[in-house]
Amino acid sequence: MKRRDFIQKVGVGSLAVGTSLASSNVANAATQFKWKMVTAWPKNFPGLGTNANLLAKMITDMSGGRIKIKVYGAKELVPAFEVFDAVSNGIAEMGHSGAYYWKGKTEATQFFSAVPFGLTAQEMNAWLYYGGGMELWRELYKPFGIIPTATGNSGVQMAGWFNREINTFEDLKGLKMRIPGLGGEVLRRAGGTTVNMPGGELFTSLQSGALDATEWVGPYNDLAFGFYKVAKYYYYPGWHEPGSTMEALINEKAFNSLPKDLQQIVLMACKAANMDMISEYTARNNQALDALINKHKVKVLPLPNDVLRKLKQISDEVVVELANKDALSKKIYDSVSQFRAQVTQWGVVSELAFLKARML
Amino acid sequence: MKRRDFIQKVGVGSLAVGTSLASSNVANAATQFKWKMVTAWPKNFPGLGTNANLLAKMITDMSGGRIKIKVYGAKELVPAFEVFDAVSNGIAEMGHSGAYYWKGKTEATQFFSAVPFGLTAQEMNAWLYYGGGMELWRELYKPFGIIPTATGNSGVQMAGWFNREINTFEDLKGLKMRIPGLGGEVLRRAGGTTVNMPGGELFTSLQSGALDATEWVGPYNDLAFGFYKVAKYYYYPGWHEPGSTMEALINEKAFNSLPKDLQQIVLMACKAANMDMISEYTARNNQALDALINKHKVKVLPLPNDVLRKLKQISDEVVVELANKDALSKKIYDSVSQFRAQVTQWGVVSELAFLKARML
Repeated sequence: MKRRDFIQKVGVGSLAVGTSLASSNVANAATQFKWKMVTAWPKNFPGLGTNANLLAKMITDMSGGRIKIKVYGAKELVPAFEVFDAVSNGIAEMGHSGAYYWKGKTEATQFFSAVPFGLTAQEMNAWLYYGGGMELWRELYKPFGIIPTATGNSGVQMAGWFNREINTFEDLKGLKMRIPGLGGEVLRRAGGTTVNMPGGELFTSLQSGALDATEWVGPYNDLAFGFYKVAKYYYYPGWHEPGSTMEALINEKAFNSLPKDLQQIVLMACKAANMDMISEYTARNNQALDALINKHKVKVLPLPNDVLRKLKQISDEVVVELANKDALSKKIYDSVSQFRAQVTQWGVVSELAFLKARML
Repeated sequence: MKRRDFIQKVGVGSLAVGTSLASSNVANAATQFKWKMVTAWPKNFPGLGTNANLLAKMITDMSGGRIKIKVYGAKELVPAFEVFDAVSNGIAEMGHSGAYYWKGKTEATQFFSAVPFGLTAQEMNAWLYYGGGMELWRELYKPFGIIPTATGNSGVQMAGWFNREINTFEDLKGLKMRIPGLGGEVLRRAGGTTVNMPGGELFTSLQSGALDATEWVGPYNDLAFGFYKVAKYYYYPGWHEPGSTMEALINEKAFNSLPKDLQQIVLMACKAANMDMISEYTARNNQALDALINKHKVKVLPLPNDVLRKLKQISDEVVVELANKDALSKKIYDSVSQFRAQVTQWGVVSELAFLKARML
């Protein structure tokens, strides 16, 4: 039934009499939207898949059931790496994924998930909501008919699991590691070999020696995968992903067909889900790290400063090359790198100084 | 008009025929709620007052106008320090303030705004949403008929503006400083004198010498107050308030009278506003600090490690004393201090390690 027919049949117009609500608002209340949300994660995957479930539930609850969203795990409706296309083509009204998966569409997407030595979760959100980042992200996805927004952040990730110690920069040479995105490009230039494979194959590949190392997320997800059984060393910090943003993709036409109150509900639910995920990861990583160290006796080690310093030099080169791909990439790079310069200065007197003081 | 009468008069029941929506939901769509929100801030005060405005607007927008909220600055309806009572008594349905203002009601409220050497914004939210903090907060406010939740965070504050250099712990002796809450108690035990006065009087008090020092918030708010004109030294980090939570207070009866979708809208709007404020402060502090250093030539200095170490020892004593006031205070203290111990360990390998690596 079309919305107009429905409104005529139930005669909503008369309801508006005697109230100060516009009839269009009341009409909205009786119109239902059934949406699909495709995700790049296994269904119910802790932190990522569960955030997609939460987002869908928040939208349904806040809309009083006017939007119902069915969440699909990777491969249930489309494969993980087709989430972007599915939302662009209207196969699904929403998607839940990470922007760096779409670098094949346009390389600059990588600025909106994780940049080596880039922004932490708090800084990334500051750039997105108050530093011009969101407007640039929308500009980037506009040609694809997609409205992007942030719906979560993993916080600082771990450098990963290694089957040997990393004492010098030379130890990275010949290292076979699963590390995607810009971080992978940095490792290749450092002399390593990157291997791309789904999360589910990492455990056996580490066990068989097909991989020497892998990064994944952080203690919360890594503990669940059991990597501690097959790799001896757990390195930090996650220089390659200091605050990975998860994205909600919204089909533009589907969004525009919503009444204004439901549009706001969809966008604000994403913002609340964004707060939720970083809180979940901070709390759960914290518990899981404790279990890894005290129960499973994992060796948690810092990457040596000299190694980090060299990785940072290469990272800066890789990011500048990305910036020079096209005009929009340059515009995004200029925005985020100016923001990073200032926020680093602020971080020195705020987060960094306080975290050090608390350790005294 | 009571809701029941209203529903009967407009005959909403018939509207539900032919739709899959429960009639109660449709009834909701035609019921309007006019709420008041009293705040502890001057109307439109940057960051704090503007967050209250934003919160009210989000609720109205997401509800399609079914909840309209009039925001009152401090003194417009009730004075700043009567916000809690006003919400408790139903004079206003909502409040926007900081929990440490209510220590006169019950001392444990201080755990929910800022604790010296306690949790950062990200950690505080992790404790509230995923570490049991929110449940304890609700238990604490339950006897007052108030549902509390987080609606913002200032992030790490600055130690404050000083008219003299602080080189040793002894330099704190005799210092006349505006510093409220637990931090103030710490300073008193360190030999200082604390003075309580509204924000608007700080500038002239510093100028006249009635105050030697004041903390306020951070560069964003402090720049606007012009403190750089009357105090030479700007110290960091804000050991006394590492991540101050702003609270939304909701009158329990008013909340319970809302249909379920509007209840969700109110709570999720607070969560989205919480994400918004820390993003705003991170972005704006960052810009303001740049102006203070480069335009106004402010001397931004770290408190010496020895001073911080001693302040931390005293802080721990003060917080333990607070914990021993009553059983609920003890329960809250046990929860937050266990959380802090673990999250500090996680912070060492994540935020702290990354922020240091980025400076190499």
